[in-house]
Amino acid sequence: MDGHVARGYGSGRVGLGDRPAVLVIDFQGLLCDPESPMYGGEAVDEALSSTARLLRVAREVGLPVFYTTVGYRADARDMALWPLKVRHLPICVAGSRWTRIPEQIAPREDEIVLPKRMASAFFGTDLLALLNAARIDSVIVCGGTTGGCVRATVVDAFQYGLRALVTSSCTLDMDPLAHRVNLQDIDKRYGDLVELDQLLGELRMRFGNAAR
Amino acid sequence: MDGHVARGYGSGRVGLGDRPAVLVIDFQGLLCDPESPMYGGEAVDEALSSTARLLRVAREVGLPVFYTTVGYRADARDMALWPLKVRHLPICVAGSRWTRIPEQIAPREDEIVLPKRMASAFFGTDLLALLNAARIDSVIVCGGTTGGCVRATVVDAFQYGLRALVTSSCTLDMDPLAHRVNLQDIDKRYGDLVELDQLLGELRMRFGNAAR
Amino acid sequence: MDGHVARGYGSGRVGLGDRPAVLVIDFQGLLCDPESPMYGGEAVDEALSSTARLLRVAREVGLPVFYTTVGYRADARDMALWPLKVRHLPICVAGSRWTRIPEQIAPREDEIVLPKRMASAFFGTDLLALLNAARIDSVIVCGGTTGGCVRATVVDAFQYGLRALVTSSCTLDMDPLAHRVNLQDIDKRYGDLVELDQLLGELRMRFGNAAR
Amino acid sequence: MDGHVARGYGSGRVGLGDRPAVLVIDFQGLLCDPESPMYGGEAVDEALSSTARLLRVAREVGLPVFYTTVGYRADARDMALWPLKVRHLPICVAGSRWTRIPEQIAPREDEIVLPKRMASAFFGTDLLALLNAARIDSVIVCGGTTGGCVRATVVDAFQYGLRALVTSSCTLDMDPLAHRVNLQDIDKRYGDLVELDQLLGELRMRFGNAAR
Repeated sequence: MDGHVARGYGSGRVGLGDRPAVLVIDFQGLLCDPESPMYGGEAVDEALSSTARLLRVAREVGLPVFYTTVGYRADARDMALWPLKVRHLPICVAGSRWTRIPEQIAPREDEIVLPKRMASAFFGTDLLALLNAARIDSVIVCGGTTGGCVRATVVDAFQYGLRALVTSSCTLDMDPLAHRVNLQDIDKRYGDLVELDQLLGELRMRFGNAAR
Repeated sequence: MDGHVARGYGSGRVGLGDRPAVLVIDFQGLLCDPESPMYGGEAVDEALSSTARLLRVAREVGLPVFYTTVGYRADARDMALWPLKVRHLPICVAGSRWTRIPEQIAPREDEIVLPKRMASAFFGTDLLALLNAARIDSVIVCGGTTGGCVRATVVDAFQYGLRALVTSSCTLDMDPLAHRVNLQDIDKRYGDLVELDQLLGELRMRFGNAAR
Repeated sequence: MDGHVARGYGSGRVGLGDRPAVLVIDFQGLLCDPESPMYGGEAVDEALSSTARLLRVAREVGLPVFYTTVGYRADARDMALWPLKVRHLPICVAGSRWTRIPEQIAPREDEIVLPKRMASAFFGTDLLALLNAARIDSVIVCGGTTGGCVRATVVDAFQYGLRALVTSSCTLDMDPLAHRVNLQDIDKRYGDLVELDQLLGELRMRFGNAAR
Repeated sequence: MDGHVARGYGSGRVGLGDRPAVLVIDFQGLLCDPESPMYGGEAVDEALSSTARLLRVAREVGLPVFYTTVGYRADARDMALWPLKVRHLPICVAGSRWTRIPEQIAPREDEIVLPKRMASAFFGTDLLALLNAARIDSVIVCGGTTGGCVRATVVDAFQYGLRALVTSSCTLDMDPLAHRVNLQDIDKRYGDLVELDQLLGELRMRFGNAAR
């Protein structure tokens, strides 16, 4: 039934855009360190190695990469309402082990790490200014958690008119059901859920020449 | 084990605040009319009658109520990336039946209906200015969809330092699993998931005098 | 003294960008109608005819044009703090003569008019989403007042990473000194103050082919 | 002629609000160090000593104080469009002497210093979240420059529904005319221009008891 669209959202595609960037969201000790009270669980290792793969290709073809990390004052005075809601979060003091980015996905010297304190990478940061000034039109969002900062970042990207893409393997959530449902919510309304291999192929094909 | 907090988020309470307002998000033909291609399904009737109950109490005790509706130009030029993603949304032309608010939860003349075009009620509207100017510190969020505009609104409320509360019965999503998971995500990180009856009791107890 | 930069700001150039749009800010009865208590004075006529010239060229070469108008509820409940500060503003009811755009600079049917309530064209509107979705990288800002909404719009454009340009002849302020000083402040820090004729020449030269 | 309001803005009063905070904007080496290429000139000494007086009273009566400083990466990659416009700004590297806050107005250990990169203290920071979470309803804005970051901060405060107050003596601009005109623009449209002595008197009278 050609052209038929059933009830519901329809899950159209925003596509990769002409100038994508990679956003690595909160991939840090709090989520990745097995001793953290907010450890992401089994999904961490795959998410790290998949993100490392994505970063390798992205850098090869010349895409800009931006990182965010969350971190707070030791006295928690810059946490707004967080301490009321998420009890362990005040351990995540800026500069502590909980804000450290794992070696295998570490930023290069010329890549920007934006400290943030809220959920969305666009909230309380200059991310939008930096993306616009560089005429970036789309973002590939990695990191965690799928049902927290990744999703909030994708929703804001969409609202600000930027195409957003996510993969299941480069994002993670402690709760596998929440991981799955949030990716579906994103795919229905805001951004494209794509396979990592397919994404890497498209990056190489479309931007591979730019790097030469 | 007193005081023990397991791994994970912890789901603390933000509480009702001292000056709450009610936000009614996108309760309109697009979601509520059985002929709409984005009809919310069985959950619509209960969500409408629960919201009508909440509004009755909120008005009795003098809480301000704000509505949002989504609506676009007939030529879709004000839709940014929506048409790429959500195929049916362009039918939702401002002023059409798809933007009509159902009678049983209709706004009073002195209540503000904010037209919006994106997901969050804070995006592309003056909602935050109006709440701050009125010194509102918390919002009770109703409407739909749970996994779309309700959630985006709650996340932004939290990020802007406003306490947010949701109930299962005053919110809805076509997808019952997404409804449940999004309410859990909200409760873990951003706002309080509460029972409607308990909320109404607290409103009457704490603000009932203000109305006299 | 080649290359010497004195103390101060330096007034570098942001330039026109690759995809400019025109923003026409609050050119409406409140500012342009001689009977308005906030009439812009002698400067109105020149600003209107200069803006009409700019619009003619912009449309010829295919630049998108966006308008804003301010307008409020008759009961002023959507004005936040304005009524405390600007006593005449509550007359500017949406749909009244004070919100009418003068014929000579009227929007075409396919151009978007964004209603706004605050100063900046980016505040409480979807302007940024629309600009980004269309990959606009720069804005030519017209209208009034120079020391009010024009300036607030230019500052936000700059902060969001968009190049902004203003001309003296397409902007206006009741207070000629404020007009001049605000244009200087803009030129020092945020956007380029350019001559209208030079701007029109550059638009024709750089984008003239696009229209064919 | 009682009740008569002439043409123009009217300059109503927003007033001090019930829970004010002090914002100290970019009072740092870049502006205050005589060797800086962006040194604020003669006005610096008075602005510093007036702000020190204000801070003494504000702390006595228990008002929260927030600071901002601007600072960038040594490679300027986080400056968005600034380098195109303000040639000296890239010297202002985070942690350098140009970001140092002068001793006489130094923050206390429990006061928050928000690093920012754009003009407004609300842009790319969590200031609004922190103010809202603490139910602050008004801000007394000090620092510099009057025609740059002070003004941008006041405009945003107003737009977000927060009452803003400025004094001539606690703000400064290299250009005395721009200082004066920007204060007038603020007073006409967005916030109250008040005398420092009067403000200190009102703070003592209204909030003096709270500190005991």
